[in-house]
Amino acid sequence: MLYCVRMDVRVPHDVDPETFERRKAAEKARAQELQRQGKWRHLWRVAGCYANVSIFDVDSHDELHELLSTLPLFPYMELSVTPLARHPSAIGDAA
Amino acid sequence: MLYCVRMDVRVPHDVDPETFERRKAAEKARAQELQRQGKWRHLWRVAGCYANVSIFDVDSHDELHELLSTLPLFPYMELSVTPLARHPSAIGDAA
Amino acid sequence: MLYCVRMDVRVPHDVDPETFERRKAAEKARAQELQRQGKWRHLWRVAGCYANVSIFDVDSHDELHELLSTLPLFPYMELSVTPLARHPSAIGDAA
Amino acid sequence: MLYCVRMDVRVPHDVDPETFERRKAAEKARAQELQRQGKWRHLWRVAGCYANVSIFDVDSHDELHELLSTLPLFPYMELSVTPLARHPSAIGDAA
Amino acid sequence: MLYCVRMDVRVPHDVDPETFERRKAAEKARAQELQRQGKWRHLWRVAGCYANVSIFDVDSHDELHELLSTLPLFPYMELSVTPLARHPSAIGDAA
Amino acid sequence: MLYCVRMDVRVPHDVDPETFERRKAAEKARAQELQRQGKWRHLWRVAGCYANVSIFDVDSHDELHELLSTLPLFPYMELSVTPLARHPSAIGDAA
Amino acid sequence: MLYCVRMDVRVPHDVDPETFERRKAAEKARAQELQRQGKWRHLWRVAGCYANVSIFDVDSHDELHELLSTLPLFPYMELSVTPLARHPSAIGDAA
Amino acid sequence: MLYCVRMDVRVPHDVDPETFERRKAAEKARAQELQRQGKWRHLWRVAGCYANVSIFDVDSHDELHELLSTLPLFPYMELSVTPLARHPSAIGDAA
Amino acid sequence: MLYCVRMDVRVPHDVDPETFERRKAAEKARAQELQRQGKWRHLWRVAGCYANVSIFDVDSHDELHELLSTLPLFPYMELSVTPLARHPSAIGDAA
Amino acid sequence: MLYCVRMDVRVPHDVDPETFERRKAAEKARAQELQRQGKWRHLWRVAGCYANVSIFDVDSHDELHELLSTLPLFPYMELSVTPLARHPSAIGDAA
Repeated sequence: MLYCVRMDVRVPHDVDPETFERRKAAEKARAQELQRQGKWRHLWRVAGCYANVSIFDVDSHDELHELLSTLPLFPYMELSVTPLARHPSAIGDAA
Repeated sequence: MLYCVRMDVRVPHDVDPETFERRKAAEKARAQELQRQGKWRHLWRVAGCYANVSIFDVDSHDELHELLSTLPLFPYMELSVTPLARHPSAIGDAA
Repeated sequence: MLYCVRMDVRVPHDVDPETFERRKAAEKARAQELQRQGKWRHLWRVAGCYANVSIFDVDSHDELHELLSTLPLFPYMELSVTPLARHPSAIGDAA
Repeated sequence: MLYCVRMDVRVPHDVDPETFERRKAAEKARAQELQRQGKWRHLWRVAGCYANVSIFDVDSHDELHELLSTLPLFPYMELSVTPLARHPSAIGDAA
Repeated sequence: MLYCVRMDVRVPHDVDPETFERRKAAEKARAQELQRQGKWRHLWRVAGCYANVSIFDVDSHDELHELLSTLPLFPYMELSVTPLARHPSAIGDAA
Repeated sequence: MLYCVRMDVRVPHDVDPETFERRKAAEKARAQELQRQGKWRHLWRVAGCYANVSIFDVDSHDELHELLSTLPLFPYMELSVTPLARHPSAIGDAA
Repeated sequence: MLYCVRMDVRVPHDVDPETFERRKAAEKARAQELQRQGKWRHLWRVAGCYANVSIFDVDSHDELHELLSTLPLFPYMELSVTPLARHPSAIGDAA
Repeated sequence: MLYCVRMDVRVPHDVDPETFERRKAAEKARAQELQRQGKWRHLWRVAGCYANVSIFDVDSHDELHELLSTLPLFPYMELSVTPLARHPSAIGDAA
Repeated sequence: MLYCVRMDVRVPHDVDPETFERRKAAEKARAQELQRQGKWRHLWRVAGCYANVSIFDVDSHDELHELLSTLPLFPYMELSVTPLARHPSAIGDAA
Repeated sequence: MLYCVRMDVRVPHDVDPETFERRKAAEKARAQELQRQGKWRHLWRVAGCYANVSIFDVDSHDELHELLSTLPLFPYMELSVTPLARHPSAIGDAA
């Protein structure tokens, strides 16, 4: 099942830079791992913002929450989740 | 270039049903044509709403505007457009 | 899977009363049918508003959209959909 | 009487981790105690967010406020409270 | 129990004046009846707006919804309901 | 003259607890003093939130501002002020 | 006492032009009468919008409501009212 | 002096098409006239919306209001006006 | 030319009190100087809030920005600026 | 291609002044460099706010993001990006 997720990263100005850099590196590794697994189907950068629009393909809300809430940058992110159904005008595979 | 576009359709309660049905049919045909051309890359239904989340792949803002503003249902839609850049953690082709 | 859905009904002041009453009756019948099927798990009235908070239990976003978009009062409703996961502190069956 | 309560937890990035962990553990214990008492009827996680949607069943606003304001994580939460009445289309016990 | 209710009246410009006047008269009679019963404890006009701030004192959400949703002007109103608990600094009877 | 005032208290997580407790005690004393003077006519707790809905009865905007801005918790509060006029359907003394 | 009032005029596209023109003329006459009485102290046009920012000087909320709610264009206006107190840094007469 | 003005056109679905087309033609002629006069410095289409972002260069708020409020499509537009000053980092003529 | 400016002062709870008091004193002196010069025409306190509504009379956006951005409390303020034109119903001098 | 970008700078009150001043100087240098390259076409100060409205002319969303996200003040800015198409009524070169 598909979910559209927007993630806006809010970096507190007084956060410890090294801690944050480690988290960013871990976030990248995790994101790429999930992409290879086919769960994180699309990952786009919102031009001009520290934010992304992503499409997740997982089997349940629980799995989605598990993936998102364990992302290294989760504590610094504001997320909005939109469940996506198949569109009657969509052609081909909807992912 | 990729754009994330959300379209919320607002159907006035006193619109002429036949006119609207004709527009819906024309909208479907046009959407499928653009998908076949590879310009309307993804089209998903927002579950529970008369709205969609779409990804367009076109060469310019002008082309995007031309496509969207000539959609048969454009007069009944509220659109928000988010330009998408490549994400540094994205793997493979970004579309 | 569980979804929390808020439905706010906006009744145009110049709608034909009989049409709307027929739709309301059909809505009630449909809502009770879905409750008996266990798909519409909870249906509560927001005190003071023509709105409800509901919990749906269905197998996919597509099924949720099918149920909601075919509700007789769907054309008069503003919906917001929140996918619900199991809470780590919840005891017993989560529904 | 039923109340729908949404709780969004805002964790300051510079909060003392141990203090917060102790509060989270106390929150879990309290939440489970209230569920066993039948006052905290439903507790669901909003998929993708550090938030929950809950249904409380208590006898008065005062009791609701007492329960919520003494939750260990109350100082870190934004709450919205919606009083729920019985829906004319609801079948069976409304809780 | 006390509820603070704000009611904003939206009068469609093309409503039939006589119908609306009849409803306004019925609304006034009903409001005064409920005040005499002690259920509509306070009724104040928001200065400069076709809106009021009211305090209701009823025994349940269901009773509140019954009262509000049967007000003659209910179809033209936007309502927001805030349940009120006793304030620890309040002196005397809280109503 | 009557004013409806909503006060939402925002307690910074790193505020010095003792300072804040002293302010809370001073706030309570001041609130009760103003209630005894008949200026703070009603003080209700918003169920589930660190907020109150209050009705003030003072002779001018200046007096209202003086009262509110000198409340010990004023620096931690977000206030919204709604001037209240007499409602044509109100019976009895409007306070 | 001073009130800052913003008035946004929403003209329904299908309003009867003559009716509206008569109301506009009556509004202008009334506005000028109140200015001559010193009650409508300042009346400015928000540049680019069918809206105004005004300062009223009246003796009570009731008087303010009476003035505003009987303005010929009141049914087409959205108003927001801000009570103004004397500013400690203001020099001279505050009006 | 420069003003940034965003204009969102809201076309009522039941507006008379011919009337609206005439207004659109008149709007285009007027917009081009003002551009030739150097008052309407920039006129861009917001991609995907029936809206524009414009930069006006006029001598006063009054002149700006005169220009905007007499635009043929003014009755169908929502405008927001942002006065622009010279930016300390701007090079060359600011227009 | 006239501008309506609303200034909301946000005082961080952990700001150094002395620094802030010095700024407040400097702000008062500057505000009174500008009032004497006739540039800061009106300065009113929003009753109940640490905010003001002001009317400035200056010759350009640049001058307005210079005045506002050099106010001692500018770093702690949220401002909204509304350019004011002459209202067709205004009588006498518009300031 | 043109983008309208609004940048609102939020300066934390406890930021190290020297660090911030260095960033501001670097920001100015970078902004002027991009203006000379013709990429940052227009840069205006929002009168009364620490914000700007800018027009960028770049070849892709990726390039836009690269430019904006590497601005020295990017970590302190809230940005909104609006892609601009050619307006049918625009005369001359649209930039």
